[in-house]
Amino acid sequence: MSAHMTPEEFRRHGREVIDWIADYYERLEQLPVLSPATPGSIRAQLPPEPPQQGEPFGAILRDLDGIVLEGMTHWQHPSFFAYFPANASGPSILGDLLASGLGAQGMLWSTSPAATELETHVLDWLAALLDIPARFRSDGAGGGVIQHSASDSALVALLAALHRASGGRTEHEGVGSGQYRVYASTQTHSSIEKACRIAGLGSNAVRAIDVDPQTLAARPAHLRELIAADVAAGLTPVLVVATVGTTSTTAIDPVRELAAIAREHGAWTHVDAAYAGVAAVAPELRFVNDGLELVDSYSTNPHKWLLTNFDCTAFWVADRGPLLGALSILPEYLRNPATDAGAVLDYRDWHVPLGRRFRALKLWSVLRWYGAEGLAEHIRGHVAMAQQLAQWIADDDRFELAAPHPLSLVCFRLRSGDAPTRALMDAINASGRAFLTHTVVNGRVTLRVAIGSPQTQVEHVSRLWSQIQSLATDPG
Amino acid sequence: MSAHMTPEEFRRHGREVIDWIADYYERLEQLPVLSPATPGSIRAQLPPEPPQQGEPFGAILRDLDGIVLEGMTHWQHPSFFAYFPANASGPSILGDLLASGLGAQGMLWSTSPAATELETHVLDWLAALLDIPARFRSDGAGGGVIQHSASDSALVALLAALHRASGGRTEHEGVGSGQYRVYASTQTHSSIEKACRIAGLGSNAVRAIDVDPQTLAARPAHLRELIAADVAAGLTPVLVVATVGTTSTTAIDPVRELAAIAREHGAWTHVDAAYAGVAAVAPELRFVNDGLELVDSYSTNPHKWLLTNFDCTAFWVADRGPLLGALSILPEYLRNPATDAGAVLDYRDWHVPLGRRFRALKLWSVLRWYGAEGLAEHIRGHVAMAQQLAQWIADDDRFELAAPHPLSLVCFRLRSGDAPTRALMDAINASGRAFLTHTVVNGRVTLRVAIGSPQTQVEHVSRLWSQIQSLATDPG
Repeated sequence: MSAHMTPEEFRRHGREVIDWIADYYERLEQLPVLSPATPGSIRAQLPPEPPQQGEPFGAILRDLDGIVLEGMTHWQHPSFFAYFPANASGPSILGDLLASGLGAQGMLWSTSPAATELETHVLDWLAALLDIPARFRSDGAGGGVIQHSASDSALVALLAALHRASGGRTEHEGVGSGQYRVYASTQTHSSIEKACRIAGLGSNAVRAIDVDPQTLAARPAHLRELIAADVAAGLTPVLVVATVGTTSTTAIDPVRELAAIAREHGAWTHVDAAYAGVAAVAPELRFVNDGLELVDSYSTNPHKWLLTNFDCTAFWVADRGPLLGALSILPEYLRNPATDAGAVLDYRDWHVPLGRRFRALKLWSVLRWYGAEGLAEHIRGHVAMAQQLAQWIADDDRFELAAPHPLSLVCFRLRSGDAPTRALMDAINASGRAFLTHTVVNGRVTLRVAIGSPQTQVEHVSRLWSQIQSLATDPG
Repeated sequence: MSAHMTPEEFRRHGREVIDWIADYYERLEQLPVLSPATPGSIRAQLPPEPPQQGEPFGAILRDLDGIVLEGMTHWQHPSFFAYFPANASGPSILGDLLASGLGAQGMLWSTSPAATELETHVLDWLAALLDIPARFRSDGAGGGVIQHSASDSALVALLAALHRASGGRTEHEGVGSGQYRVYASTQTHSSIEKACRIAGLGSNAVRAIDVDPQTLAARPAHLRELIAADVAAGLTPVLVVATVGTTSTTAIDPVRELAAIAREHGAWTHVDAAYAGVAAVAPELRFVNDGLELVDSYSTNPHKWLLTNFDCTAFWVADRGPLLGALSILPEYLRNPATDAGAVLDYRDWHVPLGRRFRALKLWSVLRWYGAEGLAEHIRGHVAMAQQLAQWIADDDRFELAAPHPLSLVCFRLRSGDAPTRALMDAINASGRAFLTHTVVNGRVTLRVAIGSPQTQVEHVSRLWSQIQSLATDPG
């Protein structure tokens, strides 16, 4: 077994894996959503030492079924309502499989021109589908790239902002002591604080913008106050982060107002629309991308709610100059005529890693399989289910909605308090029939139902609601 | 077409893709290694607007053949000798396909316990296979994780080093002005300078350690001088990077001596063995991992030369405390009992991104399919081919070897000078029959032949040598 897998063996085992996956989706609904594993219970079943001789591929599939599957929480399950969705889809899985087969590196244009050109092209396509302003497309100073995650996007946005604010000094001299300030609402994803830590500003550089207690959206007036105080103290506002669809409740910051204030002070505005941005494939939901004319960078995750397997974060800049200024280094062993001539984009300069897969193939495959209409239908279906669930909750006196629900996340709680609310969640999750997670809204424990699996149909949401109702009556 | 792909459709198209890949490997040798595309030539063949209606999957495969393939440089081609290899293999492709099918997120242990536990386990296996000291295994204070790239590894090593050197202050207060210094040889990969830029130290924080002109390895005496001067100036040595297998020539820094000096001054030592570290699966090559008893972190890339598709960088720390200190943030919506109890590893705290695929499946699949013996055989074969090529070069008076060649990279040049050497490379690459890249060694243009594709056999290397000889005689 220790020789390379031949093409004929690959055909045979490849079919076994394809069938395994197809079978998995056919039986997925029968599996418990949440893994029953306890810490260490999966490892305890694995041999302590690696194999000396090779094993047949069937042994891997056998252990996948016999050991690994019990340790899986099934993110593609129709009753997975936790966190945000992490969509997979047939065309995405197969597009990425082709990328694995080609096994090419796209770090430079010259290392596989199609890997770069298809990515640039498909990001222009996606910008068109999401009604993102033309200034973010690659035919001008801007352009798009696929990042590993929204966290990586926030980090590179911050680095570009620092480059611009410092006139290109930070990448040589460092960020110095406490000069730069970053503004984000109290509801902003932890990746912004993480980016500030990584970029050497430290978490103390983050100024928390208050939110409206009803909408949970950032208050522009408070941003204005924070910036005025910092400027008066001689500090430099470097980055304002506006979130479209916060992780906790899908609150939508007023992007246009925040960006206008940032602009007055020369600060960069980054929009983190990780979950919500892709909703704009449905024309009636394009309000989520309002105000982008004024911002500097924008990211949204097709790997959340747009049918594309992780990792696929779409990130655009209106001006790629500061990003490349912050990140470009050209050692001799990477020099090539196309780069020297400035005729091409080299995506290694757009993010932390040097190497990169042929990342665009899966997104290309998804956009073509579904088309604009299919993508819109996918989003629309989940939004309709969420609105229906919110209505059911509003109509039941035992519950209250905890936040606006403009998209496909519904946040609610039992009026009877935190402990019963948490007990309700635990009972649902322990049942194996559905999985949801919690947050805290205005100090109170709140349950989140995030609807977004391609497998989820109306009946799964109504079954969840029946289970919630029955457990609320009798939590025992 | 705009509906979801059914399991039955997935079976059909999945087989088409598996067959496409198997066919690709069967015809790979007949394709030109280097893409003939010119800037923009691939994009010009793509429709400017995304499709409104969905398209059949066959349209994607048709355009893959008709448009994309011409833009590919074939990294898996048996005559790909450029950069370093980026191995793909059947078990890896299929292991990753399973991860795509499961579509799970492993950001926390609790979000899919098997994704975390298998990764921890397989990294322990790999540490055993590479003879990495027990202190890096997960049963003590250390442990391994799969990072996206060696660049990401260098960045998080620097962040952990800053955490430790500052007593945990940097993540709150930032890195300040010019206090911290990083040491790496003149031959070190550009990712170290990039990490210093990203982490807010700026490239000025990097002190270049001189190398021995023959071995191109860092000179410990010079590191000692650099550190002494900095300490005398009141600066803090925070990180020493030792490279095992530099990108330019596979020079091997004296890890043990560098780490001992770093220790005297409380600096962190990170070993970047991106390409070379995996060679230690062959017991006779374990010298590459000498000295790791003294270092703090180590990384090597199974996605280069160990048959595992990108991305798969293995990264270990001897003490995970500083890494978690630098990167952990726990918002309410991610809280869960297993994390609160401290009973589990949550890999989101080990790197920049939050989300992560089921990354270990492909490495698990590779280690099991090949076994220790198969992996060693793979490495050994390439090393033998490289030594044969080096002998041929040494025996031909027109050429000279430019650097030691302990592994599978051979660096050489024409004695007649830079211009003929470069012309030789251009002629080989233009032929489509092989692809190699260049570097500069001691000021002179030098060609690199990196042997590492699983497809490469002795005859491909001997054909390359014949081509080199004939073009060197008649470069016209």
